Amino acid sequence: MAKKEKAAPRPKAIQPRGFRDYFGAEVASRNAMLRAITDVYHQHGFDPLETSAVETVEALGKFLPDVDRPNAGVFAWRDEDECWMALRYDLTAPLARVYAQHRNTLPTPYRRYAVGPVWRNEKPGPGRYRQFYQCDADTVGTASPAADAEICAMLATALEAAGIAKADYVIRINNRKVLNGVMEAAGLLDPADPSAAAEARGVALRTIDKLDRLGTDGVRALLGPGRKDASGAYTEGAGLRADAIDLLMGFVAAGGDSAAATLSTLRDLVGASETGQAGVAELAAIAEALEAAGHGPERMILDPSVVRGLGYYTGAVFEAELTFEILDEKGRPRRFGSVAGGGRYDDLVKRFTGQAVPATGVSIGVDRLLAALDAKAAGATADTGPVIVTVMDRDRMADYFALATTLRRAGIRCEVYLGNPKNFGNQLKYADQRRSKVAIIQGSDEAARGVVQLKDLALGAELAAKIDSNDAWKAQPAQAEVAVAELVPAVQAILAR
Amino acid sequence: MAKKEKAAPRPKAIQPRGFRDYFGAEVASRNAMLRAITDVYHQHGFDPLETSAVETVEALGKFLPDVDRPNAGVFAWRDEDECWMALRYDLTAPLARVYAQHRNTLPTPYRRYAVGPVWRNEKPGPGRYRQFYQCDADTVGTASPAADAEICAMLATALEAAGIAKADYVIRINNRKVLNGVMEAAGLLDPADPSAAAEARGVALRTIDKLDRLGTDGVRALLGPGRKDASGAYTEGAGLRADAIDLLMGFVAAGGDSAAATLSTLRDLVGASETGQAGVAELAAIAEALEAAGHGPERMILDPSVVRGLGYYTGAVFEAELTFEILDEKGRPRRFGSVAGGGRYDDLVKRFTGQAVPATGVSIGVDRLLAALDAKAAGATADTGPVIVTVMDRDRMADYFALATTLRRAGIRCEVYLGNPKNFGNQLKYADQRRSKVAIIQGSDEAARGVVQLKDLALGAELAAKIDSNDAWKAQPAQAEVAVAELVPAVQAILAR
Repeated sequence: MAKKEKAAPRPKAIQPRGFRDYFGAEVASRNAMLRAITDVYHQHGFDPLETSAVETVEALGKFLPDVDRPNAGVFAWRDEDECWMALRYDLTAPLARVYAQHRNTLPTPYRRYAVGPVWRNEKPGPGRYRQFYQCDADTVGTASPAADAEICAMLATALEAAGIAKADYVIRINNRKVLNGVMEAAGLLDPADPSAAAEARGVALRTIDKLDRLGTDGVRALLGPGRKDASGAYTEGAGLRADAIDLLMGFVAAGGDSAAATLSTLRDLVGASETGQAGVAELAAIAEALEAAGHGPERMILDPSVVRGLGYYTGAVFEAELTFEILDEKGRPRRFGSVAGGGRYDDLVKRFTGQAVPATGVSIGVDRLLAALDAKAAGATADTGPVIVTVMDRDRMADYFALATTLRRAGIRCEVYLGNPKNFGNQLKYADQRRSKVAIIQGSDEAARGVVQLKDLALGAELAAKIDSNDAWKAQPAQAEVAVAELVPAVQAILAR
Repeated sequence: MAKKEKAAPRPKAIQPRGFRDYFGAEVASRNAMLRAITDVYHQHGFDPLETSAVETVEALGKFLPDVDRPNAGVFAWRDEDECWMALRYDLTAPLARVYAQHRNTLPTPYRRYAVGPVWRNEKPGPGRYRQFYQCDADTVGTASPAADAEICAMLATALEAAGIAKADYVIRINNRKVLNGVMEAAGLLDPADPSAAAEARGVALRTIDKLDRLGTDGVRALLGPGRKDASGAYTEGAGLRADAIDLLMGFVAAGGDSAAATLSTLRDLVGASETGQAGVAELAAIAEALEAAGHGPERMILDPSVVRGLGYYTGAVFEAELTFEILDEKGRPRRFGSVAGGGRYDDLVKRFTGQAVPATGVSIGVDRLLAALDAKAAGATADTGPVIVTVMDRDRMADYFALATTLRRAGIRCEVYLGNPKNFGNQLKYADQRRSKVAIIQGSDEAARGVVQLKDLALGAELAAKIDSNDAWKAQPAQAEVAVAELVPAVQAILAR
């Protein structure tokens, strides 16, 4: 006797929280943007590198921006070999692993670009997903400021290739060594014992990084005793001395009218600190190289307020900011803000090899930049729907496929309707849903005469809902009869409108 | 007193077992191939879809080819919400989830393509990785054999677009319903109780799927009592009756000289089985549609020996096979074999919705097809290395960057040497390592005269190791002086060689 089994409950057709799907034009415009950017990287001699999504937890390390929570943030699991594996959280950690692993065969310097999703095991929120794209370019193996300058110049070229106008972006450049020099002057860093007071410096760094959001007074309060926000909530401060706070705030406000003015102020601030002086010299070299390469101070700005949250930067840091305004969720205008950032990190490879390997690079926030192009309507044009060959006679499918093949050979995107052809109105509704600009109609009498009806769907869109017979369509001005031999130019003419 | 902490051991610079990196030309040729294929999909009206790498375990289901091990095969973990998540193992399961989730807003039929990595938690082996690419196209929402025919025709066009010659591939087509009809005739399937003997049918199916490897006698033995292999190891058989084995072997051998002959043999074999007759009719409709679309029987072959291992196919099944020979690891010639496969699966969406949704599609094995293009040297040409602007005077970096910019604006891939410029020979070794065809040399006297030295590296390659001064290079025939104004055409001329 056959056993009667209980039916298993149906699975839910949903994604895990914080993940999403990308459809049609969303995929196409992202791909077009990434292609424009990586073409620029490639033109600059950078080679593509594609690592796996999965790394050992050990190799990934703990370099997430949120250093207050060093153990969280990644999706990790243990495999049958008891090896802990995790999904990469950025493209820089895998690069450090690759360079350490292959340093004897890779060229020096090694310039590479990488594009792909990264994963963060964080609380999702509106517009904040647990999988998102990054698009990075890095140069490993040279300490030359020319490499930092090259990255900044290439970033500018890449943004323009993606569709951002010259007037709409700036790249802000700073140097961690200058900041460290100021920290020395403020008594927060002892060159003879760099690990002392590391925590206080970290707090100060992350506080300064909030300048955009909190303003000067807010940051000043948080560097000192603490701060009460608009809701009345109190946040304890870093408790720095007043003279240290003055020095740090002087540093973030050191941006002057010209690179020369900024550099001069910074030179004063770092005083006798060797690290600080080296940082100012690097910054000067970067500014000079950019200027010489035609990237002048109107878009390349030395800005000491840029510190970037990541703990691993050791020298130059930079951020690309879009300067045009958009409306926020409450309808108030605000600057679009940062879409890319990066800097020099000379210690990431050292984790593996014990030897310092200088490196510098940039990461573009792909979704942010796409949103910016969207806001400026500057991205790839929306995917045009295919030409639809409708089906009048079910037994002449071969003819319809032949028409579609003719159009495709001429480079025209085209498909034969493959739903139930019985209700002709449904075929036109389908064409409408696909955003098709042209429908092709051929009944048996048209076939006998070697012609087709071409329907201009944009022109006839408003009538689509009301008419469901072929004869009625023929009376519309948006429909025209053409010989099969004239099909390609006739369709091209409608598509070109 | 500062505590002395033990230094943490250095992490190993390795990937987890079964994962690998793709460098430079490997990434570029895969991207070029995938672009050629997806352009064909797009021309046929298919829309891109990109889902996340991560799905709920529940939504993924258990449809891995290796049905003997239904609980293994995926990388899975539980997140903080206690939700079990896993990396997708193919692109079809996420499509079924998406269609079920969005069926009210997606067009019917929904044609989509998808490209991306998938992950299998399986024992890695030579050439067998735990992350690899798939490239799929599917049509969901129509039961029409025209949709199966369209997928086969599009697959042929895509293979040709990727660089496979017409003479080098065939697409073999079969239908699971025909096989089910033969199973009925063999007493292995009772239409009134389809779940009875499912296991025996599964064993038979997977045995037949090994025909290529085991040959007719091997399969016959395994369908019956069992089989001793060359090493003497004995595998127990399915224990089918002799008349059932005869029917099944008659089925797999039913491929005739023409589609008509094959269909006629199949009609006899399925006898009175309604399912079998429906399968033969579908097969006939597909063959007819393909023939009419210009894809004749020389490349579209009705082949009953194609059964495909996956349990979820319900109708048409097909496989693209490359027919040229390559040498195996022992130097013996063998056919390259399968690079893509697919078929009709009408029950995958039903898991979620309870309603059957007809669907058909194909998946291209990206690495297999790349290997084939490699074997035929038919893929994208190897990435050319960038033009290298060498550095003679460290304080004229701006001039070198300006030369690079000039070349890039003309569409030429170019970089400035950013390693230590002290040893000129190292710069040329670097150019060699990058597979550069041209090096540009400009000392201060050349700069004063507005000229550069152009070094044709292919021509001069054999001398590179011996010479390390600029003056020595100037004497070589592979080096020529050109005016800076003539730089672009002069470099283009060398690159065109």
